[in-house]
Amino acid sequence: MSTIEKLKNRLYEVNALHAAISIMDWDQQVLMPKGGGDARAEHVGILSRMAHELFTDEATAKLLDSAASEVDPMSEEASMLKVTRREFDLNTKLPSELVERKSRLSSVAHEKWVEARANNDFPTFAPVLAEMFEIAKEEAEHLGYTNHIYDALLDQYEEGATAADCSGMFETLKAPTVNLLKEIVDRGRPIDDSAFYGQWDEAAQREFSVKITTAIGYDYNRGRLDTAPHPFCTGWSVNDVRLTTRYKDYLGSAIFGSLHEAGHGMYEQGSPEKWDRTPLAGGVSLGIHESQSRTWENIVGRSKSFWKWALPDLQKAFPSFSKFGIEDFYRMINKVEPSLIRVEADELTYNLHVMIRFEIECDLLMGKLAILDLPHAWNAKYEEYLGITPDSDKNGCLQDVHWSMGSIGYFPTYSMGNLLSYQFWASMQKDIQNTDELMAAGNFAPIHEWLREKIYAKGKSVPPKDLVRMVTGKPIGADDYVAGLHAKYRAIYELD
Amino acid sequence: MSTIEKLKNRLYEVNALHAAISIMDWDQQVLMPKGGGDARAEHVGILSRMAHELFTDEATAKLLDSAASEVDPMSEEASMLKVTRREFDLNTKLPSELVERKSRLSSVAHEKWVEARANNDFPTFAPVLAEMFEIAKEEAEHLGYTNHIYDALLDQYEEGATAADCSGMFETLKAPTVNLLKEIVDRGRPIDDSAFYGQWDEAAQREFSVKITTAIGYDYNRGRLDTAPHPFCTGWSVNDVRLTTRYKDYLGSAIFGSLHEAGHGMYEQGSPEKWDRTPLAGGVSLGIHESQSRTWENIVGRSKSFWKWALPDLQKAFPSFSKFGIEDFYRMINKVEPSLIRVEADELTYNLHVMIRFEIECDLLMGKLAILDLPHAWNAKYEEYLGITPDSDKNGCLQDVHWSMGSIGYFPTYSMGNLLSYQFWASMQKDIQNTDELMAAGNFAPIHEWLREKIYAKGKSVPPKDLVRMVTGKPIGADDYVAGLHAKYRAIYELD
Repeated sequence: MSTIEKLKNRLYEVNALHAAISIMDWDQQVLMPKGGGDARAEHVGILSRMAHELFTDEATAKLLDSAASEVDPMSEEASMLKVTRREFDLNTKLPSELVERKSRLSSVAHEKWVEARANNDFPTFAPVLAEMFEIAKEEAEHLGYTNHIYDALLDQYEEGATAADCSGMFETLKAPTVNLLKEIVDRGRPIDDSAFYGQWDEAAQREFSVKITTAIGYDYNRGRLDTAPHPFCTGWSVNDVRLTTRYKDYLGSAIFGSLHEAGHGMYEQGSPEKWDRTPLAGGVSLGIHESQSRTWENIVGRSKSFWKWALPDLQKAFPSFSKFGIEDFYRMINKVEPSLIRVEADELTYNLHVMIRFEIECDLLMGKLAILDLPHAWNAKYEEYLGITPDSDKNGCLQDVHWSMGSIGYFPTYSMGNLLSYQFWASMQKDIQNTDELMAAGNFAPIHEWLREKIYAKGKSVPPKDLVRMVTGKPIGADDYVAGLHAKYRAIYELD
Repeated sequence: MSTIEKLKNRLYEVNALHAAISIMDWDQQVLMPKGGGDARAEHVGILSRMAHELFTDEATAKLLDSAASEVDPMSEEASMLKVTRREFDLNTKLPSELVERKSRLSSVAHEKWVEARANNDFPTFAPVLAEMFEIAKEEAEHLGYTNHIYDALLDQYEEGATAADCSGMFETLKAPTVNLLKEIVDRGRPIDDSAFYGQWDEAAQREFSVKITTAIGYDYNRGRLDTAPHPFCTGWSVNDVRLTTRYKDYLGSAIFGSLHEAGHGMYEQGSPEKWDRTPLAGGVSLGIHESQSRTWENIVGRSKSFWKWALPDLQKAFPSFSKFGIEDFYRMINKVEPSLIRVEADELTYNLHVMIRFEIECDLLMGKLAILDLPHAWNAKYEEYLGITPDSDKNGCLQDVHWSMGSIGYFPTYSMGNLLSYQFWASMQKDIQNTDELMAAGNFAPIHEWLREKIYAKGKSVPPKDLVRMVTGKPIGADDYVAGLHAKYRAIYELD
């Protein structure tokens, strides 16, 4: 057996362990009976440690070194080695004990978060959250950084991105966002979207969600749609990529949530099948991933053209919408309003939510803020940036699942995704001039195919910064995003 | 760390891998999208091999040897060592390559079986089935046997049981069964159970199944009820044990299937929590396991007393039953009729189905029968023993999932379970004299508690033959079973 074959077999083993962990995590969030939590935490903890030990073993290092000299530097195998080497370096910096401790804590913390959120009881979640931030600090020290502790954490999710990049991005976004928001609030033509609130049949919501996600190109022969308290997308093969959504009294929650997760799912399903179960399969970074979910949720899903096609079906499923024409409906789904919940925020205010978390994470990591002061700090920032104060921690600092999972240092990738979704879309217009006509006809295949070819088909083989340049000819920037949002919202709110 | 602690840690790792395999298997049978099959087969294959290699490693042998001298021979730890040693010996006899080959084949074979059964197309299943029997023969040769190739396979499922035991058991059962069946067919008062066939609302079937399985003691905080083509029960913790059932045009399919699987589930849930994830947790053998499923399905679920309690609820859920009184209903659920499908067979003819499979497995293993001749041989035996011929392979040799899983050599444990369910119940009468009154009042706790204390709480710590002696004071026998069935059916069919 060649060195590269030996390495591949080892990576297939690591992949099988990760697949087991992912399916256990999916199961836990979607349908596990309450009693199963303790054993699940033990199982996931043990498997995580086994995966980490197997991957970071000296034998892997030797195989990586030997294989590097065996392969053609321009080959796919060379690309796989590069991706694996980065993963290996990231992982070998973290001791097994730390990885297992984090994994165990995550399982416990998830249960605690669900309970604390249900009971609006931050103090019961605080101790595990404090422990999670301590673990993040330990991780950052092991990973290493030059300028800012945040850089070490962010790089895991978005290769090469830094806290300084984020500060710059938010600085650029802040003024146009706040100014446009002020114009809208002061003199925009008001929008009443109360029609979206009510009691909606769950089966009808599910059916409609399946219909539109199927139409845009998510493949149900290789996936499912279930429900979870915090919707997510996960998978363990390009042919088994699963979505979750939730059914609430705001009808848009299911519709836009499903489109969003389907965007993630289509990216994962779009990896070349030959790369299945290898380090090259799947999305390359969280920012690029988010650009795909936001494309289908916002650029497509909140466009007038999309609803020219979809509104009649929605009206059939939910007859109370029959009294609205396309213009009114389009305005309703694009209502801008400072609000408490990030995942349900409009496109304009969304980045302010992200900015708040970025600032809070930095302060917690640098010891400028104590965990028990988090609710107060959170609420103060909402007052400052969005002009509103959360009515409860449930709708405040307890709203997101991610800290309970130990995902600290990745929130800015949401804003990167927003920017990139518009940047990629602007590039697409050079190849496809009639996207509006296509969407209005319910023909999403050319759009899906463009994204598949330019982005999905690359898997992890091209680093995120290179991919952005390759697809758009320039580095990530806010121009297309700010221009797009301003054009859209100035028209909707009749500001000119 | 002591040797025993080191051993335990290693066994926890093996357990975590087995948990991953079990949940992947559950997922595949219950809800996996079709496209996920190939990757699932690879993942399960790799994890099976890893579990096998880790468990059968020389280091495990050394730890077992050293630990044996460290522990008090009367302690629980000694019991755990004994159980682990038997598992170790069974497993070390099988080469890793064979284990992985079987695991991979099982995943493929399951998909093929589902497809072949749906299309009534035995020839597409035949090649994988042939391969599966070849693997079984290889396994038997590796495991070793003195008298009969079947002994090697059966011992894996039922410690110490042999083909000669089975032949003897079926010989004992055959005459009383066939004679009673003849009497019933010739001069029994006919039973019309056509009321059980129709279109039944799935949600109502599910709700009723949950109600009765909750009542008998299955704990939904530590389990779930889903659907699967072939109902089964599985788990990976005493606190996460899951049932499946199916909803068909025969209403009894869901009701008795759910009670049956709940019996398996209660046995698993009843292991002491301190043994969770250790080799001592769970059912000790397939025969003992089946005795528990059959107790709740048949002795309880097909008793008049049970339905004195449950009939009013059934009538509320399915109003077409309102016209029947308890006597008519009791007769309907105990209709004896030679039929094609084992899992839906009445108590009396059930063992004939098992006998057929036992004979066929022996013939296939000994080369007396070729795979392609299986449908013919199957049909001929149904004609001979039950007087009927299958209308299709779908309702004939393709009906059971087990061969596709590689479970060959275990069918006789179904009949052992039938015998033991009556034998245990007879013993219970010495401690609880009013089981009929209890059941009629919907109070199953004393029965559940007796079984928990005598059987479930022992986990795997007492070998099956010892357990039977310990609980009933004698070895497995057909007396209680034959006496019980004769009394029941002579009354129902008014033969005396």
